[in-house]
Amino acid sequence: MNSFTLEFDRGSRVPIYEQLYAYIANGVRSGLLKENERLPSKKALASHLGISSNTVDAAYSMLCQEGYVYSRPRSGYYVSRLELALPAPETAVSEPEQTSRSYRYDFMTNTVDAGSFPFRTWAKLGKEVLYNGEALLSAGNCRGDIELLSALSKYLREFRAVDCSPSQIVIGAGMEYLLMLLCRLLPREAEFAVEEPGYVKTPAILEGCGRRLHYIALDGDGMDAAALSDCGASVACITPSHQFPTGIVMPIGRRAELLKWASAAPGRYIIEDDYNSEFNFVGRPIPSLQGMDSRRVIYISTFSRILAPSIRIAYMVLPPEFLRSAGDILSSYSSTVSRFDQHTLANFIDGGYLSRHLNRMKTLYRRRRDILTEALAPHAARLGLSLSGGAAGLHLLLSGDGSTIGRILTRAEKENIRVPRMSDSYHSYDGEGDTLIFGYAGMKNEDIPKAISLLFDGI
Amino acid sequence: MNSFTLEFDRGSRVPIYEQLYAYIANGVRSGLLKENERLPSKKALASHLGISSNTVDAAYSMLCQEGYVYSRPRSGYYVSRLELALPAPETAVSEPEQTSRSYRYDFMTNTVDAGSFPFRTWAKLGKEVLYNGEALLSAGNCRGDIELLSALSKYLREFRAVDCSPSQIVIGAGMEYLLMLLCRLLPREAEFAVEEPGYVKTPAILEGCGRRLHYIALDGDGMDAAALSDCGASVACITPSHQFPTGIVMPIGRRAELLKWASAAPGRYIIEDDYNSEFNFVGRPIPSLQGMDSRRVIYISTFSRILAPSIRIAYMVLPPEFLRSAGDILSSYSSTVSRFDQHTLANFIDGGYLSRHLNRMKTLYRRRRDILTEALAPHAARLGLSLSGGAAGLHLLLSGDGSTIGRILTRAEKENIRVPRMSDSYHSYDGEGDTLIFGYAGMKNEDIPKAISLLFDGI
Repeated sequence: MNSFTLEFDRGSRVPIYEQLYAYIANGVRSGLLKENERLPSKKALASHLGISSNTVDAAYSMLCQEGYVYSRPRSGYYVSRLELALPAPETAVSEPEQTSRSYRYDFMTNTVDAGSFPFRTWAKLGKEVLYNGEALLSAGNCRGDIELLSALSKYLREFRAVDCSPSQIVIGAGMEYLLMLLCRLLPREAEFAVEEPGYVKTPAILEGCGRRLHYIALDGDGMDAAALSDCGASVACITPSHQFPTGIVMPIGRRAELLKWASAAPGRYIIEDDYNSEFNFVGRPIPSLQGMDSRRVIYISTFSRILAPSIRIAYMVLPPEFLRSAGDILSSYSSTVSRFDQHTLANFIDGGYLSRHLNRMKTLYRRRRDILTEALAPHAARLGLSLSGGAAGLHLLLSGDGSTIGRILTRAEKENIRVPRMSDSYHSYDGEGDTLIFGYAGMKNEDIPKAISLLFDGI
Repeated sequence: MNSFTLEFDRGSRVPIYEQLYAYIANGVRSGLLKENERLPSKKALASHLGISSNTVDAAYSMLCQEGYVYSRPRSGYYVSRLELALPAPETAVSEPEQTSRSYRYDFMTNTVDAGSFPFRTWAKLGKEVLYNGEALLSAGNCRGDIELLSALSKYLREFRAVDCSPSQIVIGAGMEYLLMLLCRLLPREAEFAVEEPGYVKTPAILEGCGRRLHYIALDGDGMDAAALSDCGASVACITPSHQFPTGIVMPIGRRAELLKWASAAPGRYIIEDDYNSEFNFVGRPIPSLQGMDSRRVIYISTFSRILAPSIRIAYMVLPPEFLRSAGDILSSYSSTVSRFDQHTLANFIDGGYLSRHLNRMKTLYRRRRDILTEALAPHAARLGLSLSGGAAGLHLLLSGDGSTIGRILTRAEKENIRVPRMSDSYHSYDGEGDTLIFGYAGMKNEDIPKAISLLFDGI
């Protein structure tokens, strides 16, 4: 390699000094340039290659900085001793697949009506925040910015009867993240009770954090308090306002029983997942459990269903006593929500846009529920299936014997329609029939009768 | 309570049916309405209170739904049996404090130059994304949207010599979140080696995830490979491009040693935190370690210093083999970054705005570094302190004996200037003197000489 016979690619975007650097670095790595071999002087190499001394200097500096060569004062540059052979680069990186099936009609429950998103308002508020945004570039409060915390505490008090001050709220990029954070804040030995059936991501996240789980069966009123008491868990995860997927609204008696359980020993907490509670079509939304005892309930909710699942803003309300011990730990975690988004949402709430949006969505979803009910009811009656769940939430339930449900699912597969089954929300399901879950928030009104008639065609 | 003597507040925003609901619910909870007591008929109560039957019906429905009362067909409504007394509401919620001290001048390292954020471009791209955004409302890929993953893989290849395909990348709302996620993906028994000194949040997060840590002292080349080998960890967290806070650039020989360590046993990984690597003022940025062995290195970086700490977008590059086993677990975690932000950033990269922004920032920060060096150098010379760290990163280091550093810190406290100390980046520090860390990214050029002369006034 004494000859340094490289050809520069002068049309390349890679500068000449980098081409020279790469040439020599490769020489060192491949062993063509030997340990302690002296490199040509900058001047000699520049003249040999027809480039400027500055260019050689830049390349030599980089080689020095990265340890390929070393310099001796008033002597020159020498090849470093590379103790170890570098591993050979992998020849081919095979691609993990990243596919997501696209359905003709989709009754999944994690959707919203795309046409109703308040794009204009959101864009206007977002732009205003951005144009006044120099102060929002620095790292914000780990719990969230006070503007959003204040807006949320007012909203929660008014709409969900949640009893909290802004400083009890922690913002996070999704319920899953907040659950991970809670696992950090709760004692390491605490075991968790979860609903069976229930939202499957909750146990997946908790288990991922190394927590022991107890699956507690539901009776008609929600999580069984006696079974909870017996299992040895100190934290119970429940969805009292509108259980997912059964739609059970926990009656006041059961709420009181669970709160009594939580109060009966120190360190017991109820995590109230208030997912979807805004959409109640009979009377007003069910008040939160948190409002009944803010010392024992950790309240969690999200804007996924109110705004959109892709805007990652969720929040939790911590009991004041709990927060006093957890505050120090929280401060090692940076907030996971962009401050621009936080302020856009704060202005969306404070400007009254959220309550208008919610009212509009409630009317729209009620109508959509009625269309779905009308489409499903004759089939349910004809086939002896039970249709339920229309009072709240954004899905209907259709229950029946395994054979009929199976025939519907076969049609669904054939017509490329996605309809989730309740048995998939169980940790272990050993029931007889099954229940189909028809999430309708993301379906177009005019598509619902078409999808349903395809699904029941010939059944 | 037979008399139902309530006065409606007709000026209130709370509807009449809710006021009636609350009145009866309180009666049940307080015991004024007794178990199995019959409520007045809807018609009778409506006439008694001078309201419509529909209003009473709405209130009774809510009471039924929440379990305060029950109905008997063709008989009427009765008070439910509430098994348990509800806990008394807490009288006063005391406020945890939420303060953040404001400094006259701040040399913290987690800042950016606020005036340089590309507000106009970001706003324009964000608006375009939002106006074409119906498809972006649904839940996105758990790893991130392909548009951003592709843009990032091109950027990483070109700017950081990272060897990866889009499907190896996972987006997350900050390095802390990605570390939490990694803890979930790595074997539960894996122990972690971290740099001493180092970025303090890394061990805090790992320890919070229940991981055993080993603090490995740095020598002049970075993490000591022999000490790593001896400690029993299977995962090493390092910052080879520009160690924080010492600024050490790991030479090629040490890189090869660490890669050899990782290859020597199955399940060993190096987490390369490439924080701040874009800002290198001598030659081009140091190529990533990941590019030398993409099978053993998990590469993590963030846009906190390139764009702003408040925009929560970080990413990691996983080895293909690792990803094959982790892919299923990842799918229980929703992405933590808004899809609107993901697409805005993708267009920012693809449109060439990022590389222009980086060039501009490099020029600006180089000038700022020069101003700070000029301001500090005379004091360093006069007091026998050592000034270093100017080749890369966004902070300078000033080292000296404990007494001189102590006097500077006393001045800092008095003048309300924040200057971090390197000893705070140690898990356990037992050195003699100390080193001050002057982060300059967030300082205004004209403030630097003022801040420094205040700091050294009388010393």
